[in-house]
Amino acid sequence: MDYTKLSKEELEKEYESVKKEYDRLAAQGLSLDMSRGKPGFENADLSEDLLTAVCREKGYKNKEGIDCRNYGGVDGIIEMKELFAEMLSLKPSQVIIGGNSSLTLMYDVISQAMTHGLGSEPMYKCENRKFICLVPGYDRHFAITDYFGFELISVPIDDNGPDMDKIEELVKDENVKGVWCVPKYSNPYGNSYSDEVVRRFANLKPAAKDFHLFWDNAYCVHDLYDEKDEILGIYDECQKAGNPDLPIIFASTSKISIPGDGVAAVAGSEKNMDMIRKRLSFQTVGPDKINMLRHARKFPNLAALLEQMKKHAEIIRPKFQTVLEAFSSELGGKGIAKWTNPKGGYFISLFVMNGCAKRVHTLCKEAGVVLTGAGASYPHGVDPDDSHLRIAPTYPTPENLKLAAGVLCVAVKLAALEKLTGKGA
Amino acid sequence: MDYTKLSKEELEKEYESVKKEYDRLAAQGLSLDMSRGKPGFENADLSEDLLTAVCREKGYKNKEGIDCRNYGGVDGIIEMKELFAEMLSLKPSQVIIGGNSSLTLMYDVISQAMTHGLGSEPMYKCENRKFICLVPGYDRHFAITDYFGFELISVPIDDNGPDMDKIEELVKDENVKGVWCVPKYSNPYGNSYSDEVVRRFANLKPAAKDFHLFWDNAYCVHDLYDEKDEILGIYDECQKAGNPDLPIIFASTSKISIPGDGVAAVAGSEKNMDMIRKRLSFQTVGPDKINMLRHARKFPNLAALLEQMKKHAEIIRPKFQTVLEAFSSELGGKGIAKWTNPKGGYFISLFVMNGCAKRVHTLCKEAGVVLTGAGASYPHGVDPDDSHLRIAPTYPTPENLKLAAGVLCVAVKLAALEKLTGKGA
Repeated sequence: MDYTKLSKEELEKEYESVKKEYDRLAAQGLSLDMSRGKPGFENADLSEDLLTAVCREKGYKNKEGIDCRNYGGVDGIIEMKELFAEMLSLKPSQVIIGGNSSLTLMYDVISQAMTHGLGSEPMYKCENRKFICLVPGYDRHFAITDYFGFELISVPIDDNGPDMDKIEELVKDENVKGVWCVPKYSNPYGNSYSDEVVRRFANLKPAAKDFHLFWDNAYCVHDLYDEKDEILGIYDECQKAGNPDLPIIFASTSKISIPGDGVAAVAGSEKNMDMIRKRLSFQTVGPDKINMLRHARKFPNLAALLEQMKKHAEIIRPKFQTVLEAFSSELGGKGIAKWTNPKGGYFISLFVMNGCAKRVHTLCKEAGVVLTGAGASYPHGVDPDDSHLRIAPTYPTPENLKLAAGVLCVAVKLAALEKLTGKGA
Repeated sequence: MDYTKLSKEELEKEYESVKKEYDRLAAQGLSLDMSRGKPGFENADLSEDLLTAVCREKGYKNKEGIDCRNYGGVDGIIEMKELFAEMLSLKPSQVIIGGNSSLTLMYDVISQAMTHGLGSEPMYKCENRKFICLVPGYDRHFAITDYFGFELISVPIDDNGPDMDKIEELVKDENVKGVWCVPKYSNPYGNSYSDEVVRRFANLKPAAKDFHLFWDNAYCVHDLYDEKDEILGIYDECQKAGNPDLPIIFASTSKISIPGDGVAAVAGSEKNMDMIRKRLSFQTVGPDKINMLRHARKFPNLAALLEQMKKHAEIIRPKFQTVLEAFSSELGGKGIAKWTNPKGGYFISLFVMNGCAKRVHTLCKEAGVVLTGAGASYPHGVDPDDSHLRIAPTYPTPENLKLAAGVLCVAVKLAALEKLTGKGA
């Protein structure tokens, strides 16, 4: 039943029916949360042995003989450099290990860019500084650059990645200093960048000498199926293009080991790493090497880590499927919504009829289902089409997710019918 | 034998004798390091149960029922706020818990002051910004403000604390934005601020609205003897003086639990904490709450923590005494050196004859004993008197420390004799 092809009378009838269904669901007194891209605790349970991996019996020294309990080693222990290097197809010398949050590392690179520059003068001196935000994208990325006074320029993303024509045009402006990218299973679109997109990023010729790709490879090993997305290595492509210093790459184990207790990394050219390492020497007497050693023991190599990722996928895959099956059976063919079908990562993007996303959010909320705020994936929280909803299936239990997805689908239908019948609130 | 009262002949004779002794020691091929204010590993051993305090059997939840493994809780878990509050005589709402490094928190407050201000406009806009550095002081403090382009203004410290007359004069300049303070067992002087000094700090009337006391209470519970230094609470005194927002207070468990794996805190007025909390929300999805929970379980209250501090003191006190006894027996009454006699903390300050500190450092190095660089405790590493040496007795074993202190004393004598006899290198 394609709503856009129904007569006025048919729409009225469908509205009454869907409204009744919505009221029934809303009366159940549900309290469900689909708003947060958090792993569930059954995912964290997979790392219970990590928490006791460093203790007196097992020793405190890494393979270089460093007792990890004391100060020092500003850029992390060698084992974790090797692990992230393997994960990101880089050399260990191209990796710096930080604390528990890759967001903190990103924030810090931007903050230092403001006060000390990124290969050019401090960015605070560029009054009209701008940053490219791929939309829908990650709100916390956007928030960092907004906080530092960058104008946020939206560029749309689709199944192949962002609109590169637009980006190539934008970087001709020397006030444009960077772009936030989540190249694999992008947050929240869900799809990955094509080879062409990665190559075009690598071959950018920005007017600004201090323009960089902020390459947040958050989901680089977060595949849900055997058939997985493969993306080109941004560093290799940049090097081929004569732009080795262009990308600053981020990753973390937050969604591999324990969300709040993981290990983050920043990576890229050795020149960039030397710069960051020098800056770090002002910021700390050394990172938490014990937590690095815990991770090194739990994940002695990439193969061990990928084994764990398979177990994560077994927990998360059915959650994605529950939501996607609900979308397919409830919204398929109705002409009022489309959605992405990611092979990994943490999010699904749902696009409802233009002008309806906020209403869907409200309807869900009133029926006891919390979604991420409509617009959250756009700069300043404003989706110009009011169409996008970020769906985060990983945290709720499968049972709750099924209930929540049911409410969501009815809300999508009701919002569309309100609009089509002119009954909008 | 007071060297300053010897005849030329007597000096020559003493020089020959000390030189022989120095050559004998230098020939031993020692390799000792007294340069670093690190705890020894026997100190970290006191926290071996901390490392396994959070695991499946013991549970992941804090007393508020929060499973500490997931994201969230940007300012830390309540138990650690309560513990630091007790330690610093504040309310838990006045405390924010960070990662493993209080230096990182300090850096961050300064960095944010640069880009977003501390109650006034961003400090990068103040081209002639200045910061007061109490000397001798902590090189890493000075380095942070140097890195951000502050002019560093030295103010001398003595047994009662810094020269407050000078500070009261300096803060009349609205370009002076702050002062680095280590109020208890100051790094590296070793003494603590008198009540008068604390009260005068609290009653400062700085011209700059965004002037703050950077109050690094690093050694607040790091007493070596039952008879300990007590300092007034800076927040209480500031509040009494109508200056509640003046201090930004820092502390950490780095030298209480495990150096690289501790928990740091920033504290002060609720207004300042609200500001910092809001800023943190851009920087992280949440701190490492698991490590906070480990600490909360190891140290359920201040009494438990102070028990551990007594054990630390039992390890560290003999090391201080070894050095102080060597100074007393080898250098006492010679008129060529004075030193502090701290009741806690991590450092002893040794003042040798003016113009001799670098030479002592070199003589030690050539005899296989590494000291902190002469001048390191002064802005830009320059001690105008070339007199101060920061002595860090905590890291070496007692045996090594005895050897190192012996070499040091001979080097102090030899450098003085070189100067007095005109035989200087």
